[in-house]
Amino acid sequence: MVDAVLFELLHTEMVAELWAPDSDLDPGPGGQRTSLQVLEGVGFRVGQALGERLPREMLAFREELDVLKFLCKDLWGAVFQKQMDSLRTNHQGTYILQDSSFPLLVHVGSGLQYLEEAPKFLAFTCGLLRGTLSTLGIKSLVSASVAALPACKFQVVIERS
Amino acid sequence: MVDAVLFELLHTEMVAELWAPDSDLDPGPGGQRTSLQVLEGVGFRVGQALGERLPREMLAFREELDVLKFLCKDLWGAVFQKQMDSLRTNHQGTYILQDSSFPLLVHVGSGLQYLEEAPKFLAFTCGLLRGTLSTLGIKSLVSASVAALPACKFQVVIERS
Repeated sequence: MVDAVLFELLHTEMVAELWAPDSDLDPGPGGQRTSLQVLEGVGFRVGQALGERLPREMLAFREELDVLKFLCKDLWGAVFQKQMDSLRTNHQGTYILQDSSFPLLVHVGSGLQYLEEAPKFLAFTCGLLRGTLSTLGIKSLVSASVAALPACKFQVVIERS
Repeated sequence: MVDAVLFELLHTEMVAELWAPDSDLDPGPGGQRTSLQVLEGVGFRVGQALGERLPREMLAFREELDVLKFLCKDLWGAVFQKQMDSLRTNHQGTYILQDSSFPLLVHVGSGLQYLEEAPKFLAFTCGLLRGTLSTLGIKSLVSASVAALPACKFQVVIERS
């Protein structure tokens, strides 16, 4: 009935709470971390924990590209009940994951004036990707960008040790 | 695969973030709201939103007791993939909902020393119940208590207008 939307509702309320004008939670300009960093951190730890729950055989990927494909298909399926629309790579450790209708953005208005609202709906998921990769043994930097709502791109840059 | 645990993971991380020793989010003793109130508020708004997504026919309950039964069966099923274990009432507007193994408490240690940790794992759900009832047209006060982990009781007191 409602289980599929529960995660999205909780995410929405977490964002709302962090950006509420009268929020006691907003660390403010003097805070050590911004609200975006808090959300990214929560996403990272959820991603780590999700990664730890993966079936054993999934943890034995041979190729980096297989791991990224897993994120696009299985992780996205589990979290958003859909698949990522495209995955591109420069074969040098940079991957572009594109979702043409990202579920956490579809409720945001689609005008240009809403573009500046987008980052707060992407920070958790950047962390989620980074955390899942971390559990799979891959250190990365993940950022997101939006050109036209509700489409968005996640850029994953693998950190070589 | 992992979708059933996603809500629980996000809830766990939200609690951890609010109670982290170095949290910028902890409003502290001088804050206008405590972390418990923040969590209860987030739960309330998620409950309201869930209530708004209910099928129309569910919004036409005749009896108060039917609404409470709905929470115990359908809401609990959607959120926790189980049903409440028992529902009692004094027929004067007070209801006791008992879950003998509350999912958000099962990962907490079971010794007496963990009892004081329990309230932070119950605040969101108190809000969730109050919010869903609110959308169904019922004003209430909801509190929770734990005698032996991971069992807990939610007390719903209907506010008569």
